[in-house]
Amino acid sequence: MPESGYDVVAIGNAIVDVVASAEEAFLAAEGVPKGAMTLIDAPRAEELYARMGPGLEMSGGSAANSMVGLAGLGGRGAFIGKVSDDQLGAIFRHDIRAAGVGFDTPAALKGPPTARCLVFVTPDAQRTLCTMLGACTELGPEDIDEAAVRAAKVTYLEGYLWDPPRAKEAFVKAAEVAHGAGREVALSLSDPFCVERHRAEFRDLVDGHVDILFANEVEISSLYQAETFDEALQAVRGRCRLAALTRSEKGCVVLDGDEVHVVDAEPAGRVVDTTGAGDLFAGGFLYGYTQGRGSYDCGRIGAIAAAEVISHYGARPEKLLADLIAQRLG
Amino acid sequence: MPESGYDVVAIGNAIVDVVASAEEAFLAAEGVPKGAMTLIDAPRAEELYARMGPGLEMSGGSAANSMVGLAGLGGRGAFIGKVSDDQLGAIFRHDIRAAGVGFDTPAALKGPPTARCLVFVTPDAQRTLCTMLGACTELGPEDIDEAAVRAAKVTYLEGYLWDPPRAKEAFVKAAEVAHGAGREVALSLSDPFCVERHRAEFRDLVDGHVDILFANEVEISSLYQAETFDEALQAVRGRCRLAALTRSEKGCVVLDGDEVHVVDAEPAGRVVDTTGAGDLFAGGFLYGYTQGRGSYDCGRIGAIAAAEVISHYGARPEKLLADLIAQRLG
Repeated sequence: MPESGYDVVAIGNAIVDVVASAEEAFLAAEGVPKGAMTLIDAPRAEELYARMGPGLEMSGGSAANSMVGLAGLGGRGAFIGKVSDDQLGAIFRHDIRAAGVGFDTPAALKGPPTARCLVFVTPDAQRTLCTMLGACTELGPEDIDEAAVRAAKVTYLEGYLWDPPRAKEAFVKAAEVAHGAGREVALSLSDPFCVERHRAEFRDLVDGHVDILFANEVEISSLYQAETFDEALQAVRGRCRLAALTRSEKGCVVLDGDEVHVVDAEPAGRVVDTTGAGDLFAGGFLYGYTQGRGSYDCGRIGAIAAAEVISHYGARPEKLLADLIAQRLG
Repeated sequence: MPESGYDVVAIGNAIVDVVASAEEAFLAAEGVPKGAMTLIDAPRAEELYARMGPGLEMSGGSAANSMVGLAGLGGRGAFIGKVSDDQLGAIFRHDIRAAGVGFDTPAALKGPPTARCLVFVTPDAQRTLCTMLGACTELGPEDIDEAAVRAAKVTYLEGYLWDPPRAKEAFVKAAEVAHGAGREVALSLSDPFCVERHRAEFRDLVDGHVDILFANEVEISSLYQAETFDEALQAVRGRCRLAALTRSEKGCVVLDGDEVHVVDAEPAGRVVDTTGAGDLFAGGFLYGYTQGRGSYDCGRIGAIAAAEVISHYGARPEKLLADLIAQRLG
């Protein structure tokens, strides 16, 4: 831990992505919902992988990607998540540390292998995720580094953590430790299906435990079963201190107490793969926030980081993000 | 095996590449010779990996890449090589099969893990390879599928196979089986340091066992300890039926019996990563050859395939090679 503590400690699923291009017809034939994250078990993962094209493997995981983005901007981030003691686990650990993110959660010595996510990128640059949670199901409250959480300005939790059962306990413990130390808790809603699976609990969380909320248009609409974005926006107002609602090429809306800021999307070149857009938005936003920037600027930094990551394959930044922000934002 | 046999059976090291960008200063500080392939042992691999940036993992291996290129063009290729029964081995097997290449060599159930190659890509797009041979050292003559070799028009061997000791026996056995069936044997010299390690043996091979030779300018010059490319060219003339000598942006020279063809390089856009250029040249050339094309056209197809692979990270083609050839060559 840095002497003055981390800016952000993130807790999430530790996942290695296997990325391949795929046709829409393939997804339809396999019954995989396009654009969403579907949980799959090990036999289904083997079956789908056998039909998948040649892949690229790269470390992923939503909150982990956010921390890599934050570190790329110069922020101090740590990640808590569970890999197994296997080759993919070693790759995950190497990559996140090599990106400058602290990662000290011990690997599981038995149980399922390191999680992998089959990422199908269709010609329209959309990504469809099929996740085998593997060792992520081994994460529990005993893995929460309380000292790091107490020292961090923000503890960031991904909604996906609500899927593996014991991870939820880790999540709750981390939120309590953070608040007990007068720190803030941020949550990403992660995915519309994830919101459907856990709607009631997520609503309670937002009302009682979350200071900073990240959600895209579909997720926030699902949370409040709203018909329009504006209806969802009105529903979330006042429920948490800060909410950043992203809308792809329509930009984002940031609610900061009574203030409402509308931030345009950063013009992107050719969009190659939207994997990681939300993750990098959150990483950029939290970087700005923990640097004391105003909420409009936080939204801008999030948008710039998201625009970078969709310009190439994979969910982690290739360009030096800090340079990009300096150049665009000053 | 396809009913009429494979066009090409390739034998090589089965390797997963770990690709990251690196500065020249890093290579100098680590004492790694830039642009070449260095063999490293497991402790050194751990040490170097710990200092390497975040990586992308993708299946590699020189002859394996060539077969993926050949299959991408519509050719029927098979690969013989040794992985371990581990996660990276499963990835290697999946990827090469998903690319349409036959691969049935059983995995090693004990011994070292699947081979990996740390690929450092410098800002000038050059690649520097550090290979931990791992399970490749387990390949032996018992792994040669004699029926496939007998049925294939060409058996293609990478020079790198001369490094793991028992693989050499596999190599010799395959060459004998191929010639016994009236088939042809092709060899790539692979790497200048590899030529230095095995110069005398490689010279004997070229004289006595090889019908089609692939080498780049540095490798062929090292083989005959020639001062100039022309000197190397004169030295190899008449020693094997067909020789394709590549010279990066200077194109290649194809010696076909008494004929000498000079083939220009295919104009490349931005060169991102030269990994796989030689492999894809050989794959494209052998595709043309086994389709009965003349030697000039074979060189052209090799050049087009090589130009594609250097336009992006990684050593396997991203674009549909067959479309590319049809478009450029007709």
